[in-house]
Amino acid sequence: MKIAVLPGDGIGTEIVAEAVKVLKALDLKFEMESALVGGVAYDAHGHPLPESTLQLAKEADAILFGAVGDWKYDKLDRPLRPEQAILGLRKHLGLFANFRPAICYEQLVDASSLKPELIAGLDILIIRELTGDIYFGQPRGRRVATDGHFPGAEEAFDTMRYSRPEIERIAHVAFQAARKRSKKVTSVDKANVLETFQFWKDVMTEVGQQYPDVELQHMYVDNAAMQLVKAPKAFDVVVTGNMFGDILSDEASMLTGSIGMLPSASLNSKNQGLYEPSHGSAPDIAGKGVANPLATILSAAMMLRFSLNQEEAAQRIEAAVQKVLAQGLRTPDIYSEGTTKVGTAQMGDAVVKAL
Amino acid sequence: MKIAVLPGDGIGTEIVAEAVKVLKALDLKFEMESALVGGVAYDAHGHPLPESTLQLAKEADAILFGAVGDWKYDKLDRPLRPEQAILGLRKHLGLFANFRPAICYEQLVDASSLKPELIAGLDILIIRELTGDIYFGQPRGRRVATDGHFPGAEEAFDTMRYSRPEIERIAHVAFQAARKRSKKVTSVDKANVLETFQFWKDVMTEVGQQYPDVELQHMYVDNAAMQLVKAPKAFDVVVTGNMFGDILSDEASMLTGSIGMLPSASLNSKNQGLYEPSHGSAPDIAGKGVANPLATILSAAMMLRFSLNQEEAAQRIEAAVQKVLAQGLRTPDIYSEGTTKVGTAQMGDAVVKAL
Ligand SMILES: CC(C)[C@H](C(=O)O)[C@@H](O)C(=O)O
Ligand SMILES: CC(C)[C@H](C(=O)O)[C@@H](O)C(=O)O
Repeated sequence: MKIAVLPGDGIGTEIVAEAVKVLKALDLKFEMESALVGGVAYDAHGHPLPESTLQLAKEADAILFGAVGDWKYDKLDRPLRPEQAILGLRKHLGLFANFRPAICYEQLVDASSLKPELIAGLDILIIRELTGDIYFGQPRGRRVATDGHFPGAEEAFDTMRYSRPEIERIAHVAFQAARKRSKKVTSVDKANVLETFQFWKDVMTEVGQQYPDVELQHMYVDNAAMQLVKAPKAFDVVVTGNMFGDILSDEASMLTGSIGMLPSASLNSKNQGLYEPSHGSAPDIAGKGVANPLATILSAAMMLRFSLNQEEAAQRIEAAVQKVLAQGLRTPDIYSEGTTKVGTAQMGDAVVKAL
Repeated sequence: MKIAVLPGDGIGTEIVAEAVKVLKALDLKFEMESALVGGVAYDAHGHPLPESTLQLAKEADAILFGAVGDWKYDKLDRPLRPEQAILGLRKHLGLFANFRPAICYEQLVDASSLKPELIAGLDILIIRELTGDIYFGQPRGRRVATDGHFPGAEEAFDTMRYSRPEIERIAHVAFQAARKRSKKVTSVDKANVLETFQFWKDVMTEVGQQYPDVELQHMYVDNAAMQLVKAPKAFDVVVTGNMFGDILSDEASMLTGSIGMLPSASLNSKNQGLYEPSHGSAPDIAGKGVANPLATILSAAMMLRFSLNQEEAAQRIEAAVQKVLAQGLRTPDIYSEGTTKVGTAQMGDAVVKAL
């Protein structure tokens, strides 16, 4: 088994180092190989996703990913910007199924913007389709409008699209995930306005008939954005397209108030996966040794579970994280009075010790 | 001056009746004429936006709109469903500028899901472009895919598009609104992924140069969805496209916890406008006399301000609403212990009395 380790930019190096520490402490048999990705890869090789990095990622069984992006690359042309690396990996590896749990840890309830009774015990699994939709749909570009409100004017355009097999496969992922949880799926669409999402809703309904034991609910995206604020605990498994999933999964993570705790997994049909924290590269705190490594450590646990077939090791990591939280250890992002403030490496060490 | 009164479905009739009551009490000179829209129009005329209703709307200086939609129309073909009426009015009247304030009333702070300190004093103005984007972009439909992940498969697609003049005019609306407020505009885009929104960002920046006194900030839509939850008061004027605006304006309204209080306005370049509450038709409570008419009454105030050039009358209504809240009157949706529960008509009467 081989893990590609891609720390990336900003706090990426620091948080991935701690996850690697934890993985090594497990004493399992796998190889790890690192490569540059994002802005640092652009600096070294002129491209955020160099061919050598992509090759490594393709060969590996799993990718442990940190984060990419920094203000200093903002002026580059879009194809050279750090985030293109992550879009490129998703596309070239066919990582269509993105799992983003939004979990509120008991000890961190107060970190949320929401009233404690609304958020305590939250455990939502957002499943976002990750290789289709308007993210990758062709055609796209700039042109002179030939119709619409201002024919003759300069315009830009993108294409939203989903094919039946794309919707079917993410639907199966969602229904199967729901079978292991509370047997309820909320499919989020905008069928009242978009052809693409009327089709999405139709196909979801069809696939749902193969899962009579799972309850399927349809919800418009604007309503979902509201209900997440109003009563987040009413959700369990949420499945949606790439664009709506981008927005709703971030909204849901932030509801917990502790996005520094939230892992994510992006899988293809061979269970190859990319594992990364739900938060970003936080260039403002990079290099200071204060970033929270727990989301990355928990991403490594997801990696063991989904791509490396090591459920037991995954549970050991998750239990160790629970333990350090119970011990009162907190990085600054989740610190509150009465707990012990620690840095990135101390937190990683504590998890290793708790294993 | 002529007002088209379109109550629509569900609680629409009840809440619009109260707003009409308030308008009549002002003793101003304007004509009001009612027509059917939405499901009730479909029942009577076979179409949610009958030609006669559209004609009335076009001739009027302003439209006072209730709400449309009911479960019983869910099975109709999309072009006949109630919400097509609102899309049709936006399109045929060119109502491109949608104003959706998200205001947290002092007395209603506790209704919010958010902790009081995060929400008290909230006053955001979301300006949503309303006649472009993927809502109306052609081409759209179903077809057999010729490229993408599954060539040969059935697929559905939509087109996102914005032309330069469409972006420019909504940009001017936003900058001008910001001049009357805290001189700060947040433009929400997804320029890191979408051609349309890279163009949006470019044009916003260009137009911003004509407003050196207004600060322009750019934010990605996923981040905006997070920041709204984390620190909503950091926003003042937010401007965005039709699709992102649909999601973010609903999220922002729900943050206040009292969406039953929030009005909206949709204007065209001649200041003709459609005024409606931010909430929906709530078929579950229709006919019970318990719906909150204040969002509709406040929409009537916006109508007086923006389309009928009656600023003073608008302020009188707004002051009257403040007064009834201060008196402790509450419809069930905003009721809390120690206040007085009233019904729809009682609330309308109280506003009239407070004028
Ligand atoms: C960086 C960006 C392209 C990316 C996305 O929009 O998918 C990010 O927001 C995410 O959610 O992983
Ligand atoms: C009913 C629907 C078509 C509409 C929209 O998506 O614009 C509604 O959600 C709104 O925000 O006014």
